[in-house]
Amino acid sequence: MALVISDMSISLDGYVTGPNDSRENPFGDGAGTLHDWIFGNPDEAERAIMQEALDNTGAVIMGRTSFDKCVDMWGENGPVAGVPIFVVTHHEPAERYPSAYTFVTDGVARAIELAKEAAGDKVVGLHGATVMQQALPLGLVDEVFVHIVPLLLGAGTPLFGSLGSAVTLERSDAIVGPSATHLRFRVVKTGG
Amino acid sequence: MALVISDMSISLDGYVTGPNDSRENPFGDGAGTLHDWIFGNPDEAERAIMQEALDNTGAVIMGRTSFDKCVDMWGENGPVAGVPIFVVTHHEPAERYPSAYTFVTDGVARAIELAKEAAGDKVVGLHGATVMQQALPLGLVDEVFVHIVPLLLGAGTPLFGSLGSAVTLERSDAIVGPSATHLRFRVVKTGG
Repeated sequence: MALVISDMSISLDGYVTGPNDSRENPFGDGAGTLHDWIFGNPDEAERAIMQEALDNTGAVIMGRTSFDKCVDMWGENGPVAGVPIFVVTHHEPAERYPSAYTFVTDGVARAIELAKEAAGDKVVGLHGATVMQQALPLGLVDEVFVHIVPLLLGAGTPLFGSLGSAVTLERSDAIVGPSATHLRFRVVKTGG
Repeated sequence: MALVISDMSISLDGYVTGPNDSRENPFGDGAGTLHDWIFGNPDEAERAIMQEALDNTGAVIMGRTSFDKCVDMWGENGPVAGVPIFVVTHHEPAERYPSAYTFVTDGVARAIELAKEAAGDKVVGLHGATVMQQALPLGLVDEVFVHIVPLLLGAGTPLFGSLGSAVTLERSDAIVGPSATHLRFRVVKTGG
């Protein structure tokens, strides 16, 4: 059964984008270096983290906000070539998009169900903050993988939003790379 | 010259206390385990982190909010026995407090100046979120040391507040302990 993993680069103060993020400025102000470790990184251990994520991902879920900001940047294949993307949205867009993208209008739980079917034994990757914040309190996130980049943004989109109550995690891996600190956690307990 | 170091335990989502923190509930709801690594920890590397901080600290600065919440818990010696504490506040309290505490009414920069004089070659420790958020944009913080505990609180007091612009850090140490991930950063660039 596919594991659902939130896998995101964040600043030390927890932002996935800086302020003023938009379709023209998808990373937001000051946040370009958040993703530097992914591209052309000479470090073997950090390259392996990225390659493993690409190899293991069987489906991607994202919110409409992330989709609108990132679709131009990603183009028709989406973030992971050959992998279906499920976009959680209130309304299907009027514009036509490549077939990699499926729009799900009945909520994040349904999107996760569809993505798990599509992913088979591979991982369902949650992209962006919104879907993670919706899915976590429902107990639908198995793991949280963060790549902590040495940067403070002070504003933007925080990965973790407000939660009804404390969530207990268990660190399952830690890779101290030259560009970021890569920490993987299992979600042990949500709520209560 | 004394280095100014913010040294705090935080949840993975960046909070130093949970919601509803008060004098009676200084850690806030759900945040008790944030400090478990400090007390009675059998792990030698994590014990050494704490001992080193205690040995190296020559003065402590905190805001009035932290002081009001923590003074009962700490008692007359403050957080580090034998070390003077400078409390940044708008008004001196009417109540008398032990001589370890000095109240500074002319701002965080003045408190840091006094604390550096008192600390000599030792470290000035910033305790709490407020003083760090005031001092960082002024370029008065040399290092940020965070102990990231595997917990999501979703609300409470965030260590890092809003900043005028992105701050660049450089990770200078990383200790992956059983209870927390201990990351030390040098502040490379504030603002601009």
